Amino acid sequence: MLIQIKENCTAENLEQITNAIKNVGYKPNAVKTLNNHYLACVGTNKFDIRSIGNLPGIKDIHIVEDSNMLVSRQWRVKDTEIDLGDGVIISRNNFTIVAGPCSIENEEQVMKTVSFLKEQNVKIMRGGIFKPRSSPYSFRGLGIGGLKIFHKHCNANGIKIISEVMQVSQIEQMYPYVDIFQVGTRNSQNFNLLDELGKVDKPVLLKRGMSSTISEFLSSAEYIFSNGNEKIILCERGIRAFEKEYRNTLDLNAIPYLKEKSHLPVFCDPSHGIGIRDYVESMALASQMAGADGVLLEIHETPEKAASDGQQTLNFFEATNAFMKLRLMDQVKKKMLGNAC
Amino acid sequence: MLIQIKENCTAENLEQITNAIKNVGYKPNAVKTLNNHYLACVGTNKFDIRSIGNLPGIKDIHIVEDSNMLVSRQWRVKDTEIDLGDGVIISRNNFTIVAGPCSIENEEQVMKTVSFLKEQNVKIMRGGIFKPRSSPYSFRGLGIGGLKIFHKHCNANGIKIISEVMQVSQIEQMYPYVDIFQVGTRNSQNFNLLDELGKVDKPVLLKRGMSSTISEFLSSAEYIFSNGNEKIILCERGIRAFEKEYRNTLDLNAIPYLKEKSHLPVFCDPSHGIGIRDYVESMALASQMAGADGVLLEIHETPEKAASDGQQTLNFFEATNAFMKLRLMDQVKKKMLGNAC
Amino acid sequence: MLIQIKENCTAENLEQITNAIKNVGYKPNAVKTLNNHYLACVGTNKFDIRSIGNLPGIKDIHIVEDSNMLVSRQWRVKDTEIDLGDGVIISRNNFTIVAGPCSIENEEQVMKTVSFLKEQNVKIMRGGIFKPRSSPYSFRGLGIGGLKIFHKHCNANGIKIISEVMQVSQIEQMYPYVDIFQVGTRNSQNFNLLDELGKVDKPVLLKRGMSSTISEFLSSAEYIFSNGNEKIILCERGIRAFEKEYRNTLDLNAIPYLKEKSHLPVFCDPSHGIGIRDYVESMALASQMAGADGVLLEIHETPEKAASDGQQTLNFFEATNAFMKLRLMDQVKKKMLGNAC
Amino acid sequence: MLIQIKENCTAENLEQITNAIKNVGYKPNAVKTLNNHYLACVGTNKFDIRSIGNLPGIKDIHIVEDSNMLVSRQWRVKDTEIDLGDGVIISRNNFTIVAGPCSIENEEQVMKTVSFLKEQNVKIMRGGIFKPRSSPYSFRGLGIGGLKIFHKHCNANGIKIISEVMQVSQIEQMYPYVDIFQVGTRNSQNFNLLDELGKVDKPVLLKRGMSSTISEFLSSAEYIFSNGNEKIILCERGIRAFEKEYRNTLDLNAIPYLKEKSHLPVFCDPSHGIGIRDYVESMALASQMAGADGVLLEIHETPEKAASDGQQTLNFFEATNAFMKLRLMDQVKKKMLGNAC
Repeated sequence: MLIQIKENCTAENLEQITNAIKNVGYKPNAVKTLNNHYLACVGTNKFDIRSIGNLPGIKDIHIVEDSNMLVSRQWRVKDTEIDLGDGVIISRNNFTIVAGPCSIENEEQVMKTVSFLKEQNVKIMRGGIFKPRSSPYSFRGLGIGGLKIFHKHCNANGIKIISEVMQVSQIEQMYPYVDIFQVGTRNSQNFNLLDELGKVDKPVLLKRGMSSTISEFLSSAEYIFSNGNEKIILCERGIRAFEKEYRNTLDLNAIPYLKEKSHLPVFCDPSHGIGIRDYVESMALASQMAGADGVLLEIHETPEKAASDGQQTLNFFEATNAFMKLRLMDQVKKKMLGNAC
Repeated sequence: MLIQIKENCTAENLEQITNAIKNVGYKPNAVKTLNNHYLACVGTNKFDIRSIGNLPGIKDIHIVEDSNMLVSRQWRVKDTEIDLGDGVIISRNNFTIVAGPCSIENEEQVMKTVSFLKEQNVKIMRGGIFKPRSSPYSFRGLGIGGLKIFHKHCNANGIKIISEVMQVSQIEQMYPYVDIFQVGTRNSQNFNLLDELGKVDKPVLLKRGMSSTISEFLSSAEYIFSNGNEKIILCERGIRAFEKEYRNTLDLNAIPYLKEKSHLPVFCDPSHGIGIRDYVESMALASQMAGADGVLLEIHETPEKAASDGQQTLNFFEATNAFMKLRLMDQVKKKMLGNAC
Repeated sequence: MLIQIKENCTAENLEQITNAIKNVGYKPNAVKTLNNHYLACVGTNKFDIRSIGNLPGIKDIHIVEDSNMLVSRQWRVKDTEIDLGDGVIISRNNFTIVAGPCSIENEEQVMKTVSFLKEQNVKIMRGGIFKPRSSPYSFRGLGIGGLKIFHKHCNANGIKIISEVMQVSQIEQMYPYVDIFQVGTRNSQNFNLLDELGKVDKPVLLKRGMSSTISEFLSSAEYIFSNGNEKIILCERGIRAFEKEYRNTLDLNAIPYLKEKSHLPVFCDPSHGIGIRDYVESMALASQMAGADGVLLEIHETPEKAASDGQQTLNFFEATNAFMKLRLMDQVKKKMLGNAC
Repeated sequence: MLIQIKENCTAENLEQITNAIKNVGYKPNAVKTLNNHYLACVGTNKFDIRSIGNLPGIKDIHIVEDSNMLVSRQWRVKDTEIDLGDGVIISRNNFTIVAGPCSIENEEQVMKTVSFLKEQNVKIMRGGIFKPRSSPYSFRGLGIGGLKIFHKHCNANGIKIISEVMQVSQIEQMYPYVDIFQVGTRNSQNFNLLDELGKVDKPVLLKRGMSSTISEFLSSAEYIFSNGNEKIILCERGIRAFEKEYRNTLDLNAIPYLKEKSHLPVFCDPSHGIGIRDYVESMALASQMAGADGVLLEIHETPEKAASDGQQTLNFFEATNAFMKLRLMDQVKKKMLGNAC
C-alpha cells in the first residue's frame, strides 16, 4: 500500500495516519523526496482502504501489489520525466542519446568529443573517471581531476554529464561536476551506495546487475526512491549467459517488460550489451524499437587507441550514422506506429 | 577448405582432386546438393592452395576458417535466398511474416486462420501437428490427419505451410503436405533428424536450441547442408537464462552476429522469445531492426481458448496491427537506413 | 492422482473405475508395465478419494501433487531397485560403478577394458557406438558392428553393457546387445525416443538435458514410465552455465533433491560434469557424498589416444584409485553416517 | 612475473630492480604485506629472467602466466595457512567448521549459539550485523551494537568471529570486534571495498559473486592481496543458473579447480548454495569431499523464527549431526584417501 501525503499535512494528522496503518498490521516507511511525501506501507492483511484513505492529510492511497511499490506503475500511470535543465529532458517523448568514451583519458580527448557531440546536437556525454576493472593492474581512471576537465568543457558547451560513482565517499566529490550519477552493473546491489544516492537531488542511472532478475533490478531502484530520490533511469546492459561470442547477452525482453512494470524511464547500453563495434548500431536500433527511451553509446575519435573498451566503441563516423538513424527512427515511430511500442 | 566442383567434372578428375586433398593432409567430405557439388575438407595443415586449385574439375576453392564451413559467409558472400514457388521467396529483400496457431486444432480453426492470412496477404502459415510437450499427459497434436486438413485449405488459397517434424519417420509422412520442415528447439541437436532432413529437397527452418551456443547452432545447420540440403533458415527463439518473468530470454545479439557469420537467412520467433502476448509485437519489431529476415508469430482467433501457448498468442486484431507495422518498418528500413541494418 | 490396479481386475471393474475417475473430472492414462497396472489421473478437482478408492479392482490409490506422478516418491516411498541379472543390482544399498571408454574404437580396446574391469570387479561397462557430435565431420562411432564386438567380450566375462541410443530405429538394432539403454543429454527431450524406450523391458539411463530443469528432467522420466517401463536411472551430468573453465557445471544440488522427489536411482557422470581428468575423482567422491547411487566414469588405457573425450578420461591407474576410494567411502558412509546422506 | 624482494633490500637496490623491470617492458606493482615485499610485474615480453633475477635485493623471481599472479599457485606451491590466534588455524590439514545464524538478532540468541558452539568445539562463529537485502524494506541487521554483543560473548568463550562488511566506512567500525571480515556475493566486485580490505591485517573471507567466473573471482582476491593482505579465504556459495527449485546452484567444480589454481584456502557455504535445510548436510559433506578446507553453516536454535534465511538454517540437533559427520569424514579422508582429494 502506498500513501501520498499532502504537503500541508500536520504532524498530528501524520501521526494519526501512521497509527491507522500500524493498526491494520502494516509497517509504514516514510519517504520524503524533493517534492513529495509518501508512506510506503509493507504488509499483507486485507482491510477496507477507505478506513485509512479518508483521514485528513492523505492526498491519495493506492493498493500496490508489487513489493517494489514506489517504482511501480500500479500507482503512477504517467511516465516519469527527468528534467536536467537547459531544456534537456529525459522522457518517452524524445529519444535520448548519451554518448562518449568509456574512460576520460585527457583534455584533448574531452575537447574533441565535446566538439563532436555539440556538432551532432547530443546533449549528454558519458565518460568514466572511476573505472571498475576486473584486474587490479588495469587502468582505473583519472579520478576527480579528470572529472573537472570533463566538466569544464561540457559546461562551456551546454552538455550534461553522466559518470559512474563507485562508492559513497565519491558522491560528494563528484556532486558539483555531474548531472547524472551512474551506478555500474557490479554495484547494482551495493545497497549502501544506493541508499546514499537516494539522498542526493541529482538523477541516478542504474544499470542492471549482470545477473540481476527484473525484480532485483527494481528493488535496487526502490532503494534509491525510498531514500528520497525519484529521479531514476533504469538501464539494461546485457546479462551474463552461456554465450561467449559476445561480451554480454543483451536482454531486450527487459525493455517492454520494465516499461510496463515501472513508471521510470528505461535506457539501453548496446555497447556493453553486445560488445562488438560492428553490431552496436543494430542493437541500438533494436532496443529503441523494443521501447527504450534512450541509449548509451561508447564513442571515441580513435577507438583502437582507447584506454578501455575500444572493441565496442564507435568512431565518430560510425557514431554520426548511428545518431542519424536513431533520430530518424524515433520520428518514424512517433508518426507512424503510435503508442504501440 | 571448401572446394566447389564443376558440374561436368569427370570421375577421374574427381579422384585426382580427392587424392590431392588427402596428400596435403585434409579429409574431404563429398556434399552433393540439388544443384551443387562440394568437397568440405577438414584439416589444419598449411599449403599452397594453388597446387590444388588449378586441378581440372574445380570450379572454385576457398580457405574457410570456420569449422562450419558450408554455412559460412567466408566463401559465399551473397545471402542465400529460398524460393518456395508461386512467388514466395525468403530473402533479405522482403521481410517474411509467418503466422499461425501453435497447434492445429480442427478444420474450422484452419479455415478461419487461412482466410485471415489470405486477407492479410501473409503467404506462409505455421501450425503444429506433432507437438513436443514437456509432460506426457499434455495434448500432443492432431498428427498427420491434422496436417492433411491444414494442407487442403492452405493449398487452395496459395498459402505455404511450415510445420514441426519431430522424428525421422515423420519426414516421409509429412513431405507431401509441407513446404518447410521446422526443427524445434528440443531437437536442434537431434543429429539423426538433421542428417535425414539434409536429404530432402524442401527447406528446413532450424530453431536454435534453448542452450545452444552460436557455434553449435551453426554446426546443426552444417549437418543439414553437408547431407545435401542448402535450403536452411536459422531461427532465434530465446535461450534459457536465469530470468523467470518471461518464458525465454530472446537473444537478439544472435541476429546481427549470425547474419555476418553465415549466408543463411535468419528469422526470429518473438512469441516464444518472450512468451507474453503484450510484448510480442515490440520484440518482433526489435528483431526486425536487429536484422531478422522474417518472424514467426503465433496467432489464434481466440487465444484464450487455444490448445497450447495461448498466453503468447496474438488475436487477429493484434496480429493485423503487428503485420502492418512490420511491413511499414520494412519499407522504412529499406528506403531510409540503407544496408546498415 | 495415481491408482494402482489389481492384477486380477476385470474389464468390467476397470471400466467402472475409469468412469468414476472421469466423473470427478480427471483424465485417466492407463499405464501397463512389466508387473504393474496403473491409472495416472490428471486433474485438479477436489473430491473424496474414498469414493473411488473403495471400488473393486483397485489395489491402492494415492493423491500425488507432483505432475510427474509415476516417478514421484509421493506414492512410492521405497527406492526403485533395478536388477540386471547375474547379481548385478542397481540400488542405494550398493554403490554402482560404471566405467568404460567414451567411444568403442576397436576389438583390442574392448578386450583390454573388459579385462581391466573384470580384474577390478566392475560389473557394468559403458561405451558409445552411436556418438552425438556437435560437428558433422567428427567421428560418429562404430555403429552396430562395434556393439557386437563390445557385447561379445562383455558377455563372455559377465559384464553388463550400457550404450547410448540416439533414435527410435536403433532400439531394435541395439536391443540384443545392451543391458541398459542410455539417453544422452541432447536427446533428453526427444519425446518420440522416450516413448519408444518406455515400451522395452530393459532399463534406461536418462541423462539430464544440459539446460533441463529438475521438473523437465522428471517429466522426461515420466514419458518413459508412462509408456510402460519402470526401470529408469536418472543421471546428472552437468548443466550449461556461464563458466567456461570447465566443460559443464556439475549440479550436485540435483542429487539430494532428486533422491527426495523421486523413487528412481540417481547416478552422476563426473567425467562430463567437469570435463577435466584431474578433477574427475574428486567430483565422483563428492557426488557419492551428495547421495548418488552410482557414477559413470570414462576410462581408457591411453586417454591421450582416445577417439573422443580424452581430456576427461582416466587411465587405468587413475581408475584403479578412483574405484578403490569410491568403494571405501561407500563402506564408510554405510557404516558410519547412517541414512543421512 | 612475480618478484619477491628481500627484507633488507636497500632503496638503491630496489630502484635498480624497478628500472630493470621497466627496461624489459614490464610494469612493476609494489606490494607490501605484513611480512613480505613483492613486485607484481605486468607485461608480455620474453626475456632472460636471470638478467633480473641475479640483481641484489631479490629473494626469488617467478614466471607466472596467470594474470592473477599473487594468488596463483604457480609461484607459491604451499597452501596458505591462516592463523587466527589461540590455536585456531585455517589450513588444509584440519577441516574448519564455521557456524552461526544468518543475522545476529539479540543477546539471548548470541548466548545460546555461543554456548552451543563451545559445547561442540566449533571455534569460529558467523553472524550478520550488516545485512545486504534485496528489498529496502527488509530487516537490515542490528549494526555495530549487535556486533559488540556478538563480540562480548565470543571473546569470553574463545570463539572467533566472522561477519560481513558492506562498505569501506564499516571496516574501521568493525575492526576491533571481528577476526575475519566477510565480503558477500553482491560485493565481490566492489573494488573499493576490496582495496581497503587489502590494507587491514585481519583475514578476509571472499565469497564468489553469484555470476563471477573463476577468473573474476581470483581477480577479486588479487585486489585484496595486491593491496597488502595475504590472508584471504575463497568461498564458493552457489551461482545463479536457470534452476529455481533451489536458491542457488552450488558449483562444486569450483572447489578442486580453485585448489589447484590458487594457494589460498577454499571454503564452501552449502547453506546458501542449495538454500534448503534438508539438503545442507549432504552438500556440506559433498563439498568436503570435493576438497573444501572448511564450510560455513547457518544454524539457529529455532530456524522457523529466524530473522532471515530460516529455510536454509539447521537447528542445533541437525547441526550436531552435521558437525559430527564432517569431522568423521575429515578423519577418514586424511587416513584413508591420502592426498587425492
